[in-house]
Amino acid sequence: MKTINTSKISGTQELLPAAQAAFNNLKSKIADTYRSSGYQEIETPSIERTEILLAKAGGDTEKQIYKLIKTTESPESSDQALRFDHTVPLARYVVEYENDLTFPFKVAQIGTNFRGERAQKGRFREFYQCDIDIIGRNTLPIAYDADVIATLLHTINTFELGTPVLARINNRKILSGLLSALNLTTKAPEIFSIIDHAEKVTPEKTKFDFEALQLSPSDIKKLLAFINLHGERSFVIKELGNLEITDPLYLEGVNELDEILYLLESTGLEAEVQADMQIVRGLDYYTGTVFEFILPEYKNIGSIAGGGRYENLAGYFTDKKFPGVGGSIGLTRLFYVLNEHQLISSTEAALVDYAIIPVSEHEYDEAFNVANKLRNKNYSTTVVLLDKKLSDKLSYSAKVAKSGIVIGEAEVSSKILKAKNFTTGDTTEVNIEVISNPEDFWAD
Amino acid sequence: MKTINTSKISGTQELLPAAQAAFNNLKSKIADTYRSSGYQEIETPSIERTEILLAKAGGDTEKQIYKLIKTTESPESSDQALRFDHTVPLARYVVEYENDLTFPFKVAQIGTNFRGERAQKGRFREFYQCDIDIIGRNTLPIAYDADVIATLLHTINTFELGTPVLARINNRKILSGLLSALNLTTKAPEIFSIIDHAEKVTPEKTKFDFEALQLSPSDIKKLLAFINLHGERSFVIKELGNLEITDPLYLEGVNELDEILYLLESTGLEAEVQADMQIVRGLDYYTGTVFEFILPEYKNIGSIAGGGRYENLAGYFTDKKFPGVGGSIGLTRLFYVLNEHQLISSTEAALVDYAIIPVSEHEYDEAFNVANKLRNKNYSTTVVLLDKKLSDKLSYSAKVAKSGIVIGEAEVSSKILKAKNFTTGDTTEVNIEVISNPEDFWAD
Repeated sequence: MKTINTSKISGTQELLPAAQAAFNNLKSKIADTYRSSGYQEIETPSIERTEILLAKAGGDTEKQIYKLIKTTESPESSDQALRFDHTVPLARYVVEYENDLTFPFKVAQIGTNFRGERAQKGRFREFYQCDIDIIGRNTLPIAYDADVIATLLHTINTFELGTPVLARINNRKILSGLLSALNLTTKAPEIFSIIDHAEKVTPEKTKFDFEALQLSPSDIKKLLAFINLHGERSFVIKELGNLEITDPLYLEGVNELDEILYLLESTGLEAEVQADMQIVRGLDYYTGTVFEFILPEYKNIGSIAGGGRYENLAGYFTDKKFPGVGGSIGLTRLFYVLNEHQLISSTEAALVDYAIIPVSEHEYDEAFNVANKLRNKNYSTTVVLLDKKLSDKLSYSAKVAKSGIVIGEAEVSSKILKAKNFTTGDTTEVNIEVISNPEDFWAD
Repeated sequence: MKTINTSKISGTQELLPAAQAAFNNLKSKIADTYRSSGYQEIETPSIERTEILLAKAGGDTEKQIYKLIKTTESPESSDQALRFDHTVPLARYVVEYENDLTFPFKVAQIGTNFRGERAQKGRFREFYQCDIDIIGRNTLPIAYDADVIATLLHTINTFELGTPVLARINNRKILSGLLSALNLTTKAPEIFSIIDHAEKVTPEKTKFDFEALQLSPSDIKKLLAFINLHGERSFVIKELGNLEITDPLYLEGVNELDEILYLLESTGLEAEVQADMQIVRGLDYYTGTVFEFILPEYKNIGSIAGGGRYENLAGYFTDKKFPGVGGSIGLTRLFYVLNEHQLISSTEAALVDYAIIPVSEHEYDEAFNVANKLRNKNYSTTVVLLDKKLSDKLSYSAKVAKSGIVIGEAEVSSKILKAKNFTTGDTTEVNIEVISNPEDFWAD
C-alpha cells in the first residue's frame, strides 16, 4: 500500500464540492456588487519583489512573509515573496500606472493573500480578501467614505444571512482630538491600542490598562464614558457636542462622522448604522473614518468586515500623495465562521438542474442533443454516460442533479420526455421538438 | 524623490482595469459553462507539501517549482511549495475525499499555477489554468471523453472570437498499435516525441529525425503518410481501416475515436471537428483520446486548449485506480495571444452603466438614492462625489460611465432626471418616482 499523506497543509481552506459552491456563490455576490457599484476589478500577481513587501511590513507581518526559492537556486538569492495583503500591491499599482488611471480610482481586489501564521482554528495561511478602495490624487472628498461603507453593507446584505447586520462607524480624529484636549497625545498609541482591545476584555481590565499608563482617575473616567458612547447619529453627535471640546481635529472628526452617517441614511440600506466611539481599528495608517460590521446576534464572531480612511496609500513608494478609503471582507474566515454558526447552507448548491439519462448507447446522441438545448436555455445539465443498469444511472443522477430525464427508445420515437424531480417525485412532460422554444418549455 | 521600482515582477500578468474586465469576462464564461455542464468546482490551496508535488514532477518541472520559506526559518526546513498544475492537487483531493465524492466525479478547477520559468514573451510564471476532468473509480466509459471535449468547445464558443475553431482529435492507442504492428514499440517514446514536434518543424526535419532513429525508409514513408491523415470522421476512419492493421490496440483506438467523433457530431456544436493523426500531446500520461483546439485562421497561436484520457490519475498516491479524462484552457496565455491578434476587445469593458452626478452636496442623498434604485435594477452605477465644478464632474463621468445623470435642485423638485449617453450624446428622461418600477423605466 502506498502511504503518502494526502491531506491538505494545515491553515488552508479545502472544501467539498457543495461547500465550494456555497463559497463561490458568496464570492460571486461580492464581485457582482463591487462591480455594479462602480469599483473596477484589478488583479496583481501573488508574487512581489521582497523589497516591495518589506517596505510596508514590519513586526509580525514580516515574520509571516513566505519567501520563494526555486529548487535550483540558493536561498540567499531569493528576492521574491508572496503578498500578505492587497494594500501593498495596490500602492505599487497606483504608482506604476498613475497616468493610465482615472482618479478617484474606485478599485476592487478579490484574491488570496498569504501569511505564514501559526496554524490555529479560524486562522488561515492562504485566505481570500475582498477589498474595495477609492484612491484620490492629492485629495479625496470625505463623502467617498460613505460610498465604501454603503457598498460593503450592500454586499453583506446580498448574502441574506437571516440575521441583522450592524455597521459601527467612528472617526479617529475624534479620539485624537479628545486626547489632545486632555493633553494625552504622547500616550495616544497606547490608548488607541487599549481601546481597540477593550471589547475583548472586561471593563475592569481596560480600566486597569489605563491606570498602568498612569492616566489620572478623571481622565480614565472620561475615556471610559467616551468609549461607551454609541447609537444613532443625532444622539451621538449631540453627546459629542455636549463634551464642549474645542480642539479643531475633534470638531473636524465629529463633522466628518456626522456627514457620513447622514449620507448612509440616504442610501436606503437595510442595515442598522451606528456611531460607536469604541471602534478605532488596529492599523496605524487609518487617519479618519474607521468602521466595522458585526452580526449583533452572533457577537462572538467579531467583525465581519471593516476598513477606513488613510491619508496616504503609497508613501513607501512615492513622494506623491494618494489619499484613500477602503474596506475588506475576509471571505475565507467569514465563510468559516458563518458555517460554524450555520448561517449559510450548502445543500443542493452543487447539483445541476437536470441529469439526462440515456437508457442505452443508442440514445447517447439524443441525450447530448437534449442536454445542449437545455444548457442553451440556462439550465445546468449533465449527461449520464455510465455503462450500467438504469437503476444505477438513476441513483447516480439523484446524487448530482435536482431532476432526471430518462431517454430511451420510446422517448426518442414519441418525442415526449419526462422530467422527474428527485426531491418531490413530481414528473413533468415535455416535447423534444419544443425544447428549443422557451415559451413552450415546461414550467420550472 | 523615492525611487523604488514599482513594476510587477517579470513573467506575471498585471492588467489595466479595462483589460482586466475583459479577462474576467472570459474567466466568468469559462466558470459558467463548466458549471452548467455539470462540472463541480473545487479549489485546492496554492501551497502543497513538497513531497506531494515532487511525487509527479521531474525534469524541467521539478526545477521550476517555487519552494516557500518563512523569513524566520532556515531554508533547509522548507517542505512546502507552490503547485505547478491542477492535476497533482486533484489527484491528492480525490484520494483524500474519495468517500465523500460521487463518481464519475465531474470536476472543474479555475485558478493560478506557478512555474519559475525563464521569463520570455507569452510565458508566465503565474498563470490561470481552467481545467475540467471526469474521474472514474476503477472504470470510466469512453463516452465521457466526448463530454469533456464538447464542454471545452462550448466554452470557447462563448468567447465569440469571430474566427472558426477547429477541434483536432486523436487516440494514442492508434499510433501505439501501428508502432506495434511495425515492430517499433521499443522506439515509441522517441517517435511520439518527433510527431509531437512535427508541426513546429519542416517535413524534411521530421524525416531527418526519423532517419536519426534508424527507421527503415519504408517505415518512415508509412509514418509520414500516417501523420498527415486528418479530416472528417467517415473519411479518416475509412483510411485507418484501409491500412489493414490487425493489432488489437490499434483497432480499439480506431473504435474509440469513431465513437467520440460520432458523439461530438450529435452535440450540435458550432465547431469543426476533425480526426487528426498528428495530435499526440506531449505528456506521457495520456493513454487514449488526445485532443487540441486551434484557430485555423491564426495557426501561429498554436493550441488554445487541449487534453486527453489517462488511465490512472493518482498512481503516485494510492494503489486504487482512478481513470480519467480532462482538458484545460490556459487562460493567461490565451488572453495574451488573443489580445496580440486583436481577437478580443476591452473597450468599455470597465465602464459602469450610469454615473450619478449631484450638482452640489445638497443632492448627495438623492444621488445615493437614485444609484441604489438603479443598482437594484441591475444597472451598474457610480456616484460622483467630487468637490469640483460640474464640468469637471462630467468629464470624470465620461471616463468611467456609459451615461451620466445630473441631479441638481431642479431635478430634485421636478423629479424628472435626464440620462445622457456619453458616446451618442442622446438624452433620455425618467421620473425619479418610477425608477423602482421596471415597467416604466427608460429603454436602455
